[in-house]
Amino acid sequence: MKRIRLSEGGGGEETWKLIRGLFLRYFNNPILSSLEDSALVEVASKIAFTTDAFTVKPIFFRGGDIGKLAVAGVVNDLAVMGAKPLYLSVSFIIEEGFLYEDLERIVQSMAKTAEEANVLIVAGDTKVIPSNQGRDIYVVASGIGEVVYPNLSSKNIKEGDAIIVSGPLGDHGACVLAQREGFDFGEEFQSDCQPLWDLVDHLLKKGIEVHAMRDPTRGGLSAVLHEWSWACGVSFVIEEEKVPIRQEVIGICEFLGLEAYHLACEGRIVLAVEEKDAEKTLRALREHPKGKDASLIGYAVKKDKPSVILRTPYGTHRLLEPPMGELLPRIC
Amino acid sequence: MKRIRLSEGGGGEETWKLIRGLFLRYFNNPILSSLEDSALVEVASKIAFTTDAFTVKPIFFRGGDIGKLAVAGVVNDLAVMGAKPLYLSVSFIIEEGFLYEDLERIVQSMAKTAEEANVLIVAGDTKVIPSNQGRDIYVVASGIGEVVYPNLSSKNIKEGDAIIVSGPLGDHGACVLAQREGFDFGEEFQSDCQPLWDLVDHLLKKGIEVHAMRDPTRGGLSAVLHEWSWACGVSFVIEEEKVPIRQEVIGICEFLGLEAYHLACEGRIVLAVEEKDAEKTLRALREHPKGKDASLIGYAVKKDKPSVILRTPYGTHRLLEPPMGELLPRIC
Repeated sequence: MKRIRLSEGGGGEETWKLIRGLFLRYFNNPILSSLEDSALVEVASKIAFTTDAFTVKPIFFRGGDIGKLAVAGVVNDLAVMGAKPLYLSVSFIIEEGFLYEDLERIVQSMAKTAEEANVLIVAGDTKVIPSNQGRDIYVVASGIGEVVYPNLSSKNIKEGDAIIVSGPLGDHGACVLAQREGFDFGEEFQSDCQPLWDLVDHLLKKGIEVHAMRDPTRGGLSAVLHEWSWACGVSFVIEEEKVPIRQEVIGICEFLGLEAYHLACEGRIVLAVEEKDAEKTLRALREHPKGKDASLIGYAVKKDKPSVILRTPYGTHRLLEPPMGELLPRIC
Repeated sequence: MKRIRLSEGGGGEETWKLIRGLFLRYFNNPILSSLEDSALVEVASKIAFTTDAFTVKPIFFRGGDIGKLAVAGVVNDLAVMGAKPLYLSVSFIIEEGFLYEDLERIVQSMAKTAEEANVLIVAGDTKVIPSNQGRDIYVVASGIGEVVYPNLSSKNIKEGDAIIVSGPLGDHGACVLAQREGFDFGEEFQSDCQPLWDLVDHLLKKGIEVHAMRDPTRGGLSAVLHEWSWACGVSFVIEEEKVPIRQEVIGICEFLGLEAYHLACEGRIVLAVEEKDAEKTLRALREHPKGKDASLIGYAVKKDKPSVILRTPYGTHRLLEPPMGELLPRIC
């Protein structure tokens, strides 16, 4: 079994062989192949720029892997800002002894996801760190997108805004946790990891004035709503019955004592729109395969203290705490 | 002693406290403070985009640290492509238990280097990985620059071109190695780690037609010349006497059996210019404090097989091998 060696991160001949034999083979485009110190690209004058580090464990999970996650994650961070994802850079930090075939599988998956999302990987770097175990890899991706739909910002959210999610919540987090804990829900239950620019573009092309959009990754829906409430001083009342959550996700949360609203998604969006636009938004989302289970889950309201309130199916209310503590390390 | 906890990478309240209490405090600018999923920035239509992962050990060394290295490294990768560095993103992967005060020192140093280089850190991410030791941190930086001087490319290098370096080679690599091996050359001998756009801009503003430029990091001068020879099919003859290398660097190379030409620099440039422009280039570089020890070290020549040839002070020749093997892990 071929394993990654320290020399492949040294910047010498072995590094060059790895770049040409693996990265250029799969991430094949003239900008990357120029192999200069920076990629030269043309863009519109307003761009979005983002970065994310991925340390998920297990590296391969149902519905994806660390590579797909990195590409989709950065694409989605651009998409929710109304930016068409264009160019990505990727840095790999790999433990010495890591299986070459696993690296190849990751790179292959990144190339496939990049193609699906219509983005080019134009810059990269590889470092190899000494280790005894050789099991870990970290992937950091950064991305540039052209701002096609400006004016999306958490600061736009107003009292009365409808809160909509594009699909079931927590699939990614629950799927990774299930695999880590050795539960098996069968092939059907997978991470939601997917790039979302096509869905966002489909929606915004209709001219619907979306106030704000987020992909609820680390910290899940709860993190998004709390960050929004801190940013614009409103509260949210969420109807628990309306939040789409799969039975498997509820099951694993009950078993591990977790709150499903805290679980990461990697292929969903949360949106705030004026109430009058809510129906149109739902219709547009549901037309697209990635938004077919979209649901209106609640509203922004004015309260003395910004908070997130859940209305239970019995009509009672409870406060949703912001995610905190050592909940879920290495979930993305 | 305050240490980084897993919860500070979880995306919940503790992560937010770390972002506001540390990163926003030092990397203070309105683009980053908006805390959206991507930074929105305005740029010219031609940009350069690059990424680099930093895993150097020790994290703090004479003349710098992993944070300064990350900012300077990305700034220099943009600069050598003729691009004015504008915006940076930074991702931290931190071992649980890492000292908070060390992280603060790194962040402080990044902020200082970014200010010196006149760039804004506009996007970031933090992940915390479980660990027993808590000693490691990896920093990945990506950068965007405006292409002010296009047409720099290793493909431009031609037979007869003069090869110039901006200062002594190998200081960074030798300094890190010395600290790792417990040698002490005194305070004077430091890493050359520094951002170089000011030097590059000073030179190119004079209208000198530089063919190609590189910062000789991993693999040192040897990697740059070999990559150039592969890219454009020429060879290089380098006069060993003309290559500025400090006594300390020669000492540590002799002791450890290393080739000084393979040692990383983090604050030098290597340039190829037409012979007729060599004197003007040297003069311009020497006018600037970061280029005061610039030296013309050799020429591009035509050979049957692309190679890098050293002419020794005795007039004999030897082949310089490309860097290979497990030379220097975690040097940058």
